[in-house]
Formats: sequence, structure tokens, C-alpha cells
Amino acid sequence: MRIAAKCPACLLNRVYLECKIATNDQSKIERAVGEALKILSEEYEKRGINALIATKVHRRVYEVLGVEDPYKPLKDRANAVAMKNLPFVEDFISKLSDKFYGAVVASIIGNAFDYGVLDHKVEEDNFKMYFLKMFAKGLTIDDTEEIKDLCRGKVVYVTDNAGEIFFDYLLIREIKKISEKVSVVVRGKPILSDATIEDAKLAGIDKVADEILPNGGEIGIDEEMLPEVTKSRIEEADVIVAKGMANYECLSESKWENVAFLLTAKCEPVARDIGVSVGSMVAMLK
Amino acid sequence: MRIAAKCPACLLNRVYLECKIATNDQSKIERAVGEALKILSEEYEKRGINALIATKVHRRVYEVLGVEDPYKPLKDRANAVAMKNLPFVEDFISKLSDKFYGAVVASIIGNAFDYGVLDHKVEEDNFKMYFLKMFAKGLTIDDTEEIKDLCRGKVVYVTDNAGEIFFDYLLIREIKKISEKVSVVVRGKPILSDATIEDAKLAGIDKVADEILPNGGEIGIDEEMLPEVTKSRIEEADVIVAKGMANYECLSESKWENVAFLLTAKCEPVARDIGVSVGSMVAMLK
Repeated sequence: MRIAAKCPACLLNRVYLECKIATNDQSKIERAVGEALKILSEEYEKRGINALIATKVHRRVYEVLGVEDPYKPLKDRANAVAMKNLPFVEDFISKLSDKFYGAVVASIIGNAFDYGVLDHKVEEDNFKMYFLKMFAKGLTIDDTEEIKDLCRGKVVYVTDNAGEIFFDYLLIREIKKISEKVSVVVRGKPILSDATIEDAKLAGIDKVADEILPNGGEIGIDEEMLPEVTKSRIEEADVIVAKGMANYECLSESKWENVAFLLTAKCEPVARDIGVSVGSMVAMLK
Repeated sequence: MRIAAKCPACLLNRVYLECKIATNDQSKIERAVGEALKILSEEYEKRGINALIATKVHRRVYEVLGVEDPYKPLKDRANAVAMKNLPFVEDFISKLSDKFYGAVVASIIGNAFDYGVLDHKVEEDNFKMYFLKMFAKGLTIDDTEEIKDLCRGKVVYVTDNAGEIFFDYLLIREIKKISEKVSVVVRGKPILSDATIEDAKLAGIDKVADEILPNGGEIGIDEEMLPEVTKSRIEEADVIVAKGMANYECLSESKWENVAFLLTAKCEPVARDIGVSVGSMVAMLK
């Protein structure tokens, strides 16, 4: 998916958010926004993939601000909320006849832990109610059966956000029951509120997956930035389970087949590209 | 007031809003956003006045979209809501001992009719409740007494939005009771949801003011763009009553003294520049 007309406003809004979290130094913030505008203005013309343009923008902003992980407090909060609600979600799924489906939907509900998307609010305060409401709403696109079949082979599971990763744990555990091998890919360096190896370990992913591998530090997946081992796992996989919008933006443009996109469509451009309304949850096989 | 780090995201968000109102042609929208980004990226570096940068941006966007007045439906709605609630507000003020103060506050509450400011929601549905709540909250900065004194001379009243202009009518009527001469300045060409001569006449301003004059079509006041007659009125004025944020952004940087800023601080940069919290109402003499 290529950058859309709504993306620049959203991206700059998130840049401003991270500036405010990181510093009170107005002149630094002003400079960071200026750098973001310059990169964005150039890159927008080339109509590249938004997630990869965003990677360039945020990396430069982090550099100007002199920070490595400005979203750390937000990630910690998301992890805490998810951890607190995990027993409830786990119990809820355990009572379902189709636990695989339940874990898929739970992991997609968890995808709503995403801070800084314009028009999207993270529901923290009453997560249980939110979870039940969303579970009842269900999937707008549901290829869970086909995805489950493909999961019997070699699986690469590309995670998205911190917080969400606790619910990924539940799904990865389900996948592992039927799968030959599960390789989990996290962000190779902190960026936005995306999960890194630390978050994955905190969520216990290392106890259920065969391995945890880094991407190249980008938001999403950029073939050219991927470490060799991660790239080879993706190329050998029977299915790539890709969580969230940034992985969708990248992998919907990739050569790789058999990608299972599990996401909540939190913004208009992604929703439109998929062909669903904003707020829809999808488990969609490419 | 110079462009702040938060302004680009807000400006691009409004550009996208007007694109969506004006057309369904995605390629036109994409091109318009690209042009906006180019101008914004260049102008941001020079740290000019946000309202005047926004003027350049929106004019170029209107050109690409091939439209002259995309906010017309929103202005009509704001005018209709204001017109409907005018008798209530008029009656409310008539019962106050200090009608000048009441009209000042009402006109500032009316300043909340502003579509497209990030983080700001226009309260249309229950305007009476909103009005009473805001009136009870009152002014955070209150120079009404000094402003009233200055209004005994020659007054230039620079309006801001459609809708709001119905409440300006009430204040201009109060000013006219004590004033030597009242010249009202509206936008010389449609831009955003700002009031033009048509809105002013719809609100009956022509019946209470001595004259209605155009600015140069900019959002706010740019000395270089002003028609000669408007400029001379401003230069001869004992007080310039400037409604809203864009007029504040421009006139806070101008050489002119005795400017009475009447506004609701709807965004963080303007609120910070004034030294109040977002949502505050001020009647402040420079």
C-alpha cells in the first residue's frame, strides 16, 4: 500500500506526539518537525510505502531529539494493561469451542493498542468491556480456516505493538500446537510503540515460539533492511502472519505470497485499501 | 505569532478535510496534499506567521481542486445554528446589567464555530447548554473595561468565522451605541469557514455598522495585502477589535497598537503564546 493523502497529517501528528513525550525543548521540537516535513515532502512525491517513509521520518526525528525510545512509557503502559487483562482473555478463549479462532480475534483486538494514530483512541480504562464488544462484533473478513491450515507448516509471525504482543502470545501458543515451526519477528530497534525483543520476552513469546528474530528496525517489513536469517525464514515460510497496519502496508506490496493479515483497520487509508470501514477487524489471506 | 511545531499537522489535517468536502477524485486530493506539503516545508523553514502560510497553502489547494469555496456547506450550517440560537443569546444578554460584557463573552463563545482545528470539536447539537456552560466559565483574561473605553472612538472590528458573525452582530450593536464609527472587516474572498460580506449581511452587520470592508482575502490580516481603504481605517482606529486565532496570529506581530483580541484559545500553540490553557476565552488588550 502506497502513501495516501491522509498519511502526512497523521504522520506529523505522531511526530509531534513523540516530540512532546521526549522533551520540553521547544527549539528542538521545532527543528525535529522541520526535518520531518522536509523528508515527508520529498518522499511523498515518490509515493512510496507509508510505513517506510514513516521509518525514515521517525529515525531522523529521534536523531534530532537525541532519543532512542521515546515511546517507552507508552509501551510500558500498554504492556501493563495487556498483562493485567491477559487472564480474562485467556479464560474467555479457553471456554470457546474454536480456540484458534478465539485467539485470532483476541490478537486482532489487541492490535488496537496503537498510540498516535489520528482519529484512533486506545481503550485502556475498560478493556474487558471493549474486548467483549469487539469480540461480539467479530471479523469483517474471516479467512481463519485457510490461515489455520497454512499454519500446519512453517510459520513466520510478524508482530506489531507492545501490549498487543501479550495477545499474540496466546495466538502463537495456539499456532505452535499444530505447527512445524514458528519464527516470531519483532522490530530490531525501538520505533514507535512497536514490540521489540524485550516486549516479546516480557509476554513469554520465547517460551512458546521456536525463535525470535529481529527485522531491520523498520516499521513493518522492508526486504532490503532485513537481516539474512530473518529474510530466509520469510522466504521458506508456508505462511507469514502479519499483524497490524504497517506490516500490511509493506507486505501488501511485497512479492511474498501466503501472507495472513491480522489487523484492526484504524485509519481511513488502510480501511479503504482493504475495502472495509474504519474500525473493522480482518483476518485476510493474500 | 510565528508558526509552531504543532501547526503543520493541524494545517495538513484541515487541507485533507477540505479536499474530502470538495471532491471524490483521489488523484486530485493526492496532488493537492503534495502541493500543500511543498509550500509548507519551504515556508516552515522561514518561521513566518502560520495564518499567512495557511493562506498560501489553502489558496494553492483550492486551485488544484478547482474550487472557490469548499467550506460553503459548513459555513451555511454554522450560520443556521447561530441564527437559530441568536434569540436565546440576545435574550440572555438583555437581562444582564453589563450588556457590553455579555456581548463580548457571547462573541467569544461564538468563536468556537471553527471547523477543522485539530483537537477542537464544534458544539452544534446542544448549543444553549454549551453557551451557558462557557458563559459561567467566563474570561480567563478580561480587559473588557479598557476595551469598552477605547470603543468610544473609531473602531475597526475584524471578524473571523461564519456562524460566529451572528454573535459579532450583537457586540457590534453594543459598540455602535457608544462609538464614533464602527468599520467591520471581513475576508475579501472565501477562505476556510471565515465570514465574507455575504455572511456579514446575512447576520445584519450592515444594519448596525457604519461600513463593511474587505481584507485582502488572507486568513487574518496581512498589511501588504490589505486594500488601501481598509488599511487607512486600521491606521486611524482608536481600537482594532480582532476576533479569533488567525487575527491574533497576524496582529500580535503587527506594528499596530490598541488591538483587542477576543478569542477562544482552541489550540495549544495559540494558548501557549497567550499564556492560558486550551479552551480559555480571552478579551485581551495589546
